[in-house]
Amino acid sequence: MTDRPPPSEFELIARYFAPLAANAPGALGLTDDAALAKPPSGHHHVITTDTMIQGVHFLADDPPGLIARKLLRVNLSDIASMGAVPRYYLLAFSLSAGIGESWIAEFAAGLKADQDEFGVTLLGGDTTATPGPVTLTLTAIGEVPDGAEIRRSTARAGDLIYVSGTIGDAALGVRLLTGEISGLSGKAAAELADRYRLPRPRVTLGPALRGLATAMTDISDGLVADLGHICETSGVGARVEWARVPLSTEAVEAVARDPSAVQIILTGGDDYELAFTADPESAEAVESVALAAGVPITCIGHVTDTEAVAVLDEKNIQIDFKTIGYKHF
Amino acid sequence: MTDRPPPSEFELIARYFAPLAANAPGALGLTDDAALAKPPSGHHHVITTDTMIQGVHFLADDPPGLIARKLLRVNLSDIASMGAVPRYYLLAFSLSAGIGESWIAEFAAGLKADQDEFGVTLLGGDTTATPGPVTLTLTAIGEVPDGAEIRRSTARAGDLIYVSGTIGDAALGVRLLTGEISGLSGKAAAELADRYRLPRPRVTLGPALRGLATAMTDISDGLVADLGHICETSGVGARVEWARVPLSTEAVEAVARDPSAVQIILTGGDDYELAFTADPESAEAVESVALAAGVPITCIGHVTDTEAVAVLDEKNIQIDFKTIGYKHF
Repeated sequence: MTDRPPPSEFELIARYFAPLAANAPGALGLTDDAALAKPPSGHHHVITTDTMIQGVHFLADDPPGLIARKLLRVNLSDIASMGAVPRYYLLAFSLSAGIGESWIAEFAAGLKADQDEFGVTLLGGDTTATPGPVTLTLTAIGEVPDGAEIRRSTARAGDLIYVSGTIGDAALGVRLLTGEISGLSGKAAAELADRYRLPRPRVTLGPALRGLATAMTDISDGLVADLGHICETSGVGARVEWARVPLSTEAVEAVARDPSAVQIILTGGDDYELAFTADPESAEAVESVALAAGVPITCIGHVTDTEAVAVLDEKNIQIDFKTIGYKHF
Repeated sequence: MTDRPPPSEFELIARYFAPLAANAPGALGLTDDAALAKPPSGHHHVITTDTMIQGVHFLADDPPGLIARKLLRVNLSDIASMGAVPRYYLLAFSLSAGIGESWIAEFAAGLKADQDEFGVTLLGGDTTATPGPVTLTLTAIGEVPDGAEIRRSTARAGDLIYVSGTIGDAALGVRLLTGEISGLSGKAAAELADRYRLPRPRVTLGPALRGLATAMTDISDGLVADLGHICETSGVGARVEWARVPLSTEAVEAVARDPSAVQIILTGGDDYELAFTADPESAEAVESVALAAGVPITCIGHVTDTEAVAVLDEKNIQIDFKTIGYKHF
């Protein structure tokens, strides 16, 4: 694909990025040295940053609009997993030589679509040229009432463990895209690939669980690894029943074809669902909050005092994992 | 240079980065999905992000500690140029294959040294592996009283124009390092290279100018370009006298050897000094504030209503510039 070279840095900002910052007075039109933001009275800012690199976190021929939306959404997922409401983001954008103006236009259009969907606004950023792959770092800022954030480190033995949505779809999807697994129907493969390319951050459910979830994280490294993060920081363990882990019909199809798909589903990552714990006495309130948020949740086990994550199969035998979760290096 | 491979991501964070976050309770030990921060009552957060890429913004064999400190300092300079006090930073760190553990240890030691010097603390971050060059994105967060930030867009015709420190040293320094210019004494060359490698962000002077500077920016793209940013956003012009532009003895030596060094000095960038405007009636207060901050400042001209930046030589003839300032692409 040939594409016009990008305009100068200042034109690029004026044409494609300044419009994304128009609704944030604190962005100062992206023409100043820094941006301004203030949480509402009685609130904290919640801040997270995540990098995506071409060839590592997305594929070179992925549509630019989807790359932009995934970048934004993986960060919104972190904000939601703290029980916070996302508001702003800053974007550090390193362009490589092959990137032309229409690529940037599609990328910005993807951001615009998700700004509208999630109610967030560009606040600032930096644009550079790189001799390496396209590298994108997004810093997201949300707001949470003082002391109401939901941490990882506060799970208690006896709590129930819940997850939102279905688990393993994105991990199966990326392996279908790269040819590592195959044999699913075209429709199933397309559904799973879409789950990889476009996460659905649980921005409504996350804040709704304030005061109910005792601990929470989003599932990015894989269910086993991310439950492990809750367990390590809380000094507890987890006992999960594989039979209760919610699967899409496509994931069920994948497991039926090859039972080793269980490994991918539980450790593959990129789910961007929420995993959280709650006191059994809160179970009814948790269910009703999820119903109101329109997000399916499933209780998959409970917190133990063993300091390890155990997943049991249908015969109550602990499943061994070859790798525990996504390793960045 | 051979170096041990880095430890796993989680060990690396625990060993080198978590200690840098120990003084910020909101960092949650770098073990959660996001960090928490809240500006003091009556204050805004001031937020900026900047990327540095190996081979573009620093040289491959630069000492890792200096790279870290430069990365932090260019961001602190942006915070200072808003009249804000820096407090926190998040670091997105993309490691390439050649980077081993001692590189990371030196990098973290550089951050530690500057945390102590500037009173800032690591708040969060992301660590990834890249097939490309080392890519570092730092997001800095400062605090400024509501409405007291010093913008670029508020200069007025008749204001005086000031700069801090000396201009052009870093731009000469990097050209000496790359061999683009030569012939200076070894001592002068070393001084100038040091100015390139280790900016001195004016974190004390910036906030001290609240209520006095009518507009401010830091000089990163080059004096002419950065004054241009103030002029464009303010709808004014600038008239600068070359003879008043403060030079180090090393820069004077460079101009004496080759008068075309004037171009490098005025348009080369990487100064990380402050350029600001102030009402002539504030001149005495501005001088005394700078004296108290221990930072030399120099009045180099005044703001006009022409919407252009003119630099006049000793004969009052306008200097032509081949390029106006650093272009990222």
